[in-house]
Amino acid sequence: MSYENFIGEVKTVSRIQAIQGQLGWDQQVMMPPNGANARADTLAWLSGRAHETLTSKKMGDLISELEKNISKLDEDQKTNVIEMRRTFDKSTKLPAEFIEKVTKTRSKGMGVWAEARKNNDFNSFSPLLGELVSLAREKISYLDKGNTPYDTLLDDYEVGLTVEYLDPLFAELKEGLIEILNKIMNAKKQQISKLDMTFPVKNQEAFCLKISEQMGFDFNSGRMDTSSHPFSIGISVGDTRITTRYDENEPFSCLYAVMHETGHGLYEQGLPNEFALTPRGTAISLGVHESQSRLWENQIGRTEEFWKYSLPLFQNEFPDFPKDIDAAQMNLIANQVEPSFIRVEADEVTYNLHIILRYEIEKQLFNGTLDVNDLPKVWNEMFKEWFGLDVEDDSTGVLQDIHWSMGAFGYFPTYTLGNLYAAQLFESMKNEFENVNKMIEEGNWSPLLNWLREHIHEKGRLYNPSDLIENATGKKPSSAPFLKYLNEKYGRIYGF
Amino acid sequence: MSYENFIGEVKTVSRIQAIQGQLGWDQQVMMPPNGANARADTLAWLSGRAHETLTSKKMGDLISELEKNISKLDEDQKTNVIEMRRTFDKSTKLPAEFIEKVTKTRSKGMGVWAEARKNNDFNSFSPLLGELVSLAREKISYLDKGNTPYDTLLDDYEVGLTVEYLDPLFAELKEGLIEILNKIMNAKKQQISKLDMTFPVKNQEAFCLKISEQMGFDFNSGRMDTSSHPFSIGISVGDTRITTRYDENEPFSCLYAVMHETGHGLYEQGLPNEFALTPRGTAISLGVHESQSRLWENQIGRTEEFWKYSLPLFQNEFPDFPKDIDAAQMNLIANQVEPSFIRVEADEVTYNLHIILRYEIEKQLFNGTLDVNDLPKVWNEMFKEWFGLDVEDDSTGVLQDIHWSMGAFGYFPTYTLGNLYAAQLFESMKNEFENVNKMIEEGNWSPLLNWLREHIHEKGRLYNPSDLIENATGKKPSSAPFLKYLNEKYGRIYGF
Repeated sequence: MSYENFIGEVKTVSRIQAIQGQLGWDQQVMMPPNGANARADTLAWLSGRAHETLTSKKMGDLISELEKNISKLDEDQKTNVIEMRRTFDKSTKLPAEFIEKVTKTRSKGMGVWAEARKNNDFNSFSPLLGELVSLAREKISYLDKGNTPYDTLLDDYEVGLTVEYLDPLFAELKEGLIEILNKIMNAKKQQISKLDMTFPVKNQEAFCLKISEQMGFDFNSGRMDTSSHPFSIGISVGDTRITTRYDENEPFSCLYAVMHETGHGLYEQGLPNEFALTPRGTAISLGVHESQSRLWENQIGRTEEFWKYSLPLFQNEFPDFPKDIDAAQMNLIANQVEPSFIRVEADEVTYNLHIILRYEIEKQLFNGTLDVNDLPKVWNEMFKEWFGLDVEDDSTGVLQDIHWSMGAFGYFPTYTLGNLYAAQLFESMKNEFENVNKMIEEGNWSPLLNWLREHIHEKGRLYNPSDLIENATGKKPSSAPFLKYLNEKYGRIYGF
Repeated sequence: MSYENFIGEVKTVSRIQAIQGQLGWDQQVMMPPNGANARADTLAWLSGRAHETLTSKKMGDLISELEKNISKLDEDQKTNVIEMRRTFDKSTKLPAEFIEKVTKTRSKGMGVWAEARKNNDFNSFSPLLGELVSLAREKISYLDKGNTPYDTLLDDYEVGLTVEYLDPLFAELKEGLIEILNKIMNAKKQQISKLDMTFPVKNQEAFCLKISEQMGFDFNSGRMDTSSHPFSIGISVGDTRITTRYDENEPFSCLYAVMHETGHGLYEQGLPNEFALTPRGTAISLGVHESQSRLWENQIGRTEEFWKYSLPLFQNEFPDFPKDIDAAQMNLIANQVEPSFIRVEADEVTYNLHIILRYEIEKQLFNGTLDVNDLPKVWNEMFKEWFGLDVEDDSTGVLQDIHWSMGAFGYFPTYTLGNLYAAQLFESMKNEFENVNKMIEEGNWSPLLNWLREHIHEKGRLYNPSDLIENATGKKPSSAPFLKYLNEKYGRIYGF
């Protein structure tokens, strides 16, 4: 009986969050500009209602009562109690005035950061960044102590994540990445076709919809729209939405955004409906979510086999596309590697170096003695050493990402975890199926989706991220599958 | 101090309703089909929360406290107290079990009605319709007594509306309408151009957007989309949305839907922002809302002057459109009068006969002794007498409208009130401005909108509908301006 009461309260919180999700989607995709203030007001009001319900005495009592007799619950029910305990504790430990202060500083921070990036002026941002770092330190003081202060921040984005877990993983990865990068840089430069034509939005949309459907996205339970930054969101059972953006000069950024967001969307569509609005029916973490998007985008999408299947569909939409560009050449265009300043434009090799750099800096900020004012200097030195490039202005250096201006310290590592998990999952699929390459080439993709459904999607929050990956692949998470994948892929392209 | 507390509670209710509005818009315009169940669940949950807040002891106490010292409040504040008292009483007088029963019967009703209409089978619907009538009678027993039972239903949709008010209004109107209809039927038949081409959706959309903007709709504070039934909704300050539908074979249904919905939308955009989320900042009634849509759609949109201004814009979008069709001919096409079975397809003359017929039937149902089973017989007899047409099946007769299946008895008269109010307001504008025809022809429409802003939109719920119209026009609402307008309009077209 009290389990049902408990689930009733949990669903109230989830319902409010689902409404926030829908309003947030509308805000980014549909809302006319002058609706902004009222929408912000509505969203803040809903946040208050969700927090109120989540942190109520009633919720606390229900959780405590269930914990006393936890052995009487089944695994699904236990998951819900354990996950709500975690969320409840995290939410009740942060004082209301603190949350308010963070919200205000954050919204101020984003504005100041945008201005500072535009003007290439780190000094105008550093005082606020200093405040945001102090607030993150204050947050650490309220929450459960990890082995190090930074652990507490990491755990906030990826449950159970620690420096102890990441340090060896990232060290091995960094070494391997630099090795591959050197091989590529020393290899013979490939002749890459110039795409000297326009790709109308209408045809890009039609092509991308076909690919998304081919991946298994159910458009009776979802839709695709346009927004300035591609994203995906699971609003409810039967309603998952993805967005993309179009560049008429090149069709790849749209395609890979759609494959990436469809990967996220398939995870949401694959969550078990019977546990909707409870943790058991919710995605476990940012890292695992990113593994789903990256697997489809990179392991499947950035391959010659993918283009063998998709090129005819592509040519069908773009009849003027040069007939002499074949699948191998398409793959080459989609896999150019070159060190560059901007993370979000990076290839699969350098992308993770961008992340590890941010990880090292965050670690020094919270576990070491790095001062906010020294950030540009440290950033530029590391960048020169790792990428061989001189950062010329902070706008393309330390100021490039929005995350710190939102106080999101500890978030970046989840991107790389996603890449590692994706490679490890894909390696298991290769062992499971006789010839994955042939399946991709023939458009026989549904067994791949079904494998992910069974091993990842249906599990919801039953297991912690690293356990989930280990259960699915039989191995503890490591960087080995990812490095192997990169070596094979780029060895094939660049001939090493 | 207690006024502020009161407004806080009022805004909570309004916020929830605004969220319902946004989710409802999404449901009709954007939501993928499989999201239907979860969305219905979310909307029902929100209804519960709104009702809970609206009918709370706290709300009741705050209202009572303010009523004790009502003389200390200004007019705007008084309006909010008076309107919330009305809403509070109405909501608290209906027992929760009764509301639940109505909600269930209603959602069952709509399904059964749709099926019955499809199969032209009144008998399969009549038991449920009987239940819905009984529930409406039960509702009457809970609410304030009007002079007649039907008055209580009328008041529910249009505050202060009574049979005593409507009977003479509609009697005079009916007589006048039948007279005009006879004149038109006896006039020489006009030669009307056949539109033998297709009108691509893209160009219809572009044309309609231009007209909507020309009317004064602010697209930075709104948007236009497609839905199966056109509608409009004010979601928040700065966010009002309209929808339309497209028929590639003829461009008029889309255009006049857009003008109609833009008329509604302009009312929403013109409500006073400083009173947002309170009754004072909300539209007063369905009838007044309909007057705004009808004024733009008919008084302005279905005129030769409108087409003198708009035909070049139209030809610009449809270059193949015959050059020999001029503004007068366009106006003729847009104003064909012919008695037909279906209300929503009716012209301005017969439309109101459709409404008065429904009014007479509803009156007999609630104030008289008409039995639900006799509805088809009574309907068909009246239809023969008024329209001169034999109703051949109930699908195009008594089963055509969704309203009764939703238990919405007393709603129909607001449509005709809208037409009467529109004509009366437009007559005042003609007196106010030297030459309205010339203004329409020259696209000088903003003074017309400003007049409506000042006399209607900005007033919110400050006055009851009939007082609002009287204040704006200096005369009590009557059918005279509408009949005069029809006589002039159709006299000009048909030469009588």
